[in-house]
Amino acid sequence: MQIEWEQRYAQRVKQMQGSAIRELLKVTEIPGTISLAGGLPAAEIFPVKEVAAATQRILERNGVQALQYGATEGYTPLREMIAANCRRDGLPVTIDNILIVSGSQQGLDLLAKIMIDPGDPLLVESPTYMGALQAFNAYEPSYVAVRSDEDGIVTDELEQGLQKQPKFIYALPNFQNPTGVTFTLERRRKLVEMAGRYGVPILEDDPYSELRFEGEQLPSLLQLENERQQAIQGNQAYEGNVIQLKTFSKVLTPGLRLGWVVAPSDIIGKLVLAKQGADLHTSTLNQLIAYEIAREGFLEEHVHIIRQTYLERRNAMLAALDEYFPDNVTWTHPQGGMFLWVTVPEGIDSAQLLKDALEYQIAFVPGAAFHPAGGGANTMRLSFSGAAPERIEEGIRRLGRLLHTRLLRA
Amino acid sequence: MQIEWEQRYAQRVKQMQGSAIRELLKVTEIPGTISLAGGLPAAEIFPVKEVAAATQRILERNGVQALQYGATEGYTPLREMIAANCRRDGLPVTIDNILIVSGSQQGLDLLAKIMIDPGDPLLVESPTYMGALQAFNAYEPSYVAVRSDEDGIVTDELEQGLQKQPKFIYALPNFQNPTGVTFTLERRRKLVEMAGRYGVPILEDDPYSELRFEGEQLPSLLQLENERQQAIQGNQAYEGNVIQLKTFSKVLTPGLRLGWVVAPSDIIGKLVLAKQGADLHTSTLNQLIAYEIAREGFLEEHVHIIRQTYLERRNAMLAALDEYFPDNVTWTHPQGGMFLWVTVPEGIDSAQLLKDALEYQIAFVPGAAFHPAGGGANTMRLSFSGAAPERIEEGIRRLGRLLHTRLLRA
Repeated sequence: MQIEWEQRYAQRVKQMQGSAIRELLKVTEIPGTISLAGGLPAAEIFPVKEVAAATQRILERNGVQALQYGATEGYTPLREMIAANCRRDGLPVTIDNILIVSGSQQGLDLLAKIMIDPGDPLLVESPTYMGALQAFNAYEPSYVAVRSDEDGIVTDELEQGLQKQPKFIYALPNFQNPTGVTFTLERRRKLVEMAGRYGVPILEDDPYSELRFEGEQLPSLLQLENERQQAIQGNQAYEGNVIQLKTFSKVLTPGLRLGWVVAPSDIIGKLVLAKQGADLHTSTLNQLIAYEIAREGFLEEHVHIIRQTYLERRNAMLAALDEYFPDNVTWTHPQGGMFLWVTVPEGIDSAQLLKDALEYQIAFVPGAAFHPAGGGANTMRLSFSGAAPERIEEGIRRLGRLLHTRLLRA
Repeated sequence: MQIEWEQRYAQRVKQMQGSAIRELLKVTEIPGTISLAGGLPAAEIFPVKEVAAATQRILERNGVQALQYGATEGYTPLREMIAANCRRDGLPVTIDNILIVSGSQQGLDLLAKIMIDPGDPLLVESPTYMGALQAFNAYEPSYVAVRSDEDGIVTDELEQGLQKQPKFIYALPNFQNPTGVTFTLERRRKLVEMAGRYGVPILEDDPYSELRFEGEQLPSLLQLENERQQAIQGNQAYEGNVIQLKTFSKVLTPGLRLGWVVAPSDIIGKLVLAKQGADLHTSTLNQLIAYEIAREGFLEEHVHIIRQTYLERRNAMLAALDEYFPDNVTWTHPQGGMFLWVTVPEGIDSAQLLKDALEYQIAFVPGAAFHPAGGGANTMRLSFSGAAPERIEEGIRRLGRLLHTRLLRA
């Protein structure tokens, strides 16, 4: 039987390669390993007590609803709260523009499901979030990869990609996973304008914008698209070209698996149908917990603690990189989020380096898997969110020693 | 913009029609409506206090883990507990045969994702669970529908279907949704034997077997397949032809969105890759809650209360049907589960009937949507799980009056 299965599904599974991140998470469970790999939020500052108290209140007051089936669209008060927050940012959206999803990863899957036919081109940054590639790959697209630099996607190289008529553009404008890079305002405007001109939707994945610990918040692609649309068509419901994915994972906790999509109402309607088939609806209990915690403004307070924590950790990492890494290695300087990106000299393969690193009990994610069109073997992603500053320093010290040795040998 | 979207996705969305059940759930929120439609578990007996207490214990002892990202495969102790339960039923399975999913609906989606290419035939019962059809439809299969009668799928008509080499057989052997029918032991054996002979996998969807309130528990297709395999190959790890879907929704609560898949380990491996892309993993908190509640045997006690409640409600429905429904209407007599199935005389369209019924504030699900190959306009699904006996009686009384009127007019 086993052989038959293998034959039948070999090709499809080739399309769905395991995520190197997820596999690494297993290795890094070994005690003593310093993991700069997983991209885990800082667990020490999870608001465990607040979640516990909110859950008790919900189950006392509203236990039956919290535990019963719910609507596919999501818990109405939660959707209303999210829509109200969007309106505060100037977006003309209502509850009809909001779908609750089981983590923004599900948003990626559902959008791919309603949009991608095998062979369809998608325009992505290179490098980009490998979890998105994994979601998309199940639907067998092809990729048009556009280079990113320290200002985000290189919009001067966008036209050529758009001429291939991609089904959509996938973009992470804030503290991108994996590079930590943020698109400049100019690049944002240009991206939105060009996508609009070509009629290509943009999927704006924005898990990190609340995690800005330095510099000035920039308007989202969704906001810029709305401005563009309002300038052309006047004040009306949002029907723009940008679909935005957001999540509670980084500002509350990831274990609840809770995110949302902001999109024109007709797109939401299609996503609702896809979600019905995919998981009926997102956990009612978890939606009620998030609503209960968020509605009184707790997250606005809590995010200050997260930002402060991540700023300290980023600073610890930058300082350690300066001290311990060889001169011919470069890295990004993110103003928020959870990751930075290291480029080592050509010829050093970071996947090989990882094998040695694991012997020194230090883990990171090799960069190749983030490159949909190949390349990037001399890059790596380092996460600064999940480890305490002294652990980060020790980890970078070990990695630096390894790199010095490797460069001497090269 | 809107028009462009419409054109682009019109065809695909045609493949993903809205679930009549889900749409009805909205109508039945109108106060005063008696809903025999939704298939909701009885909320009055949800173990709200136990969930509250378990959540507090988890968050006190293990809050960080409960709220952090987790492994795609699921929470290890929960998978171990499920595997141990399987072994108690004689199945040679380990943790490697178990995947936790976000409700068994997600199991349907993931299996479809790894198995179905557009146009692939699937063999299904007719009628069958429309939520499964909706999950499958996103991957654009074709259907080979095999008739069911009061003993389950008509195995004498199976051979012809199997000759079309379906990718898999989708079967609901216990208290089927929508009919409430249970496959006899003879039909089970024959189905498993024939599927094995043709090398066609069976997807056994089993949300209801614990809800048997009458008669004797029958072996699952998974158990029968394991016996068949052991007879051929001797004692070894489960590598059979049956994949089983199970859920906590009916024995604990559906709002947690928690189910699991039992399958050969190589299939689980493929499902894990698909699930990584679909939602990374199922809510850690909810997995810990279910484990905490189940590990001390609470569910075995609690299911007695559920069975007793559903038996009373089924009895109320059967008595009312006898009393109020016209003589030329027939219905099934389920020994468990949540649904029964009514057949009215040919020529009466139950979808039309529903419109009148809603004016009398009584809702059910018209049967046509459960028929993948069309037909069934004169059938309807009635759920007895969600309403109190007196409400069921009143609902059936109203429906009966409507049917009498309709038959007089015909």
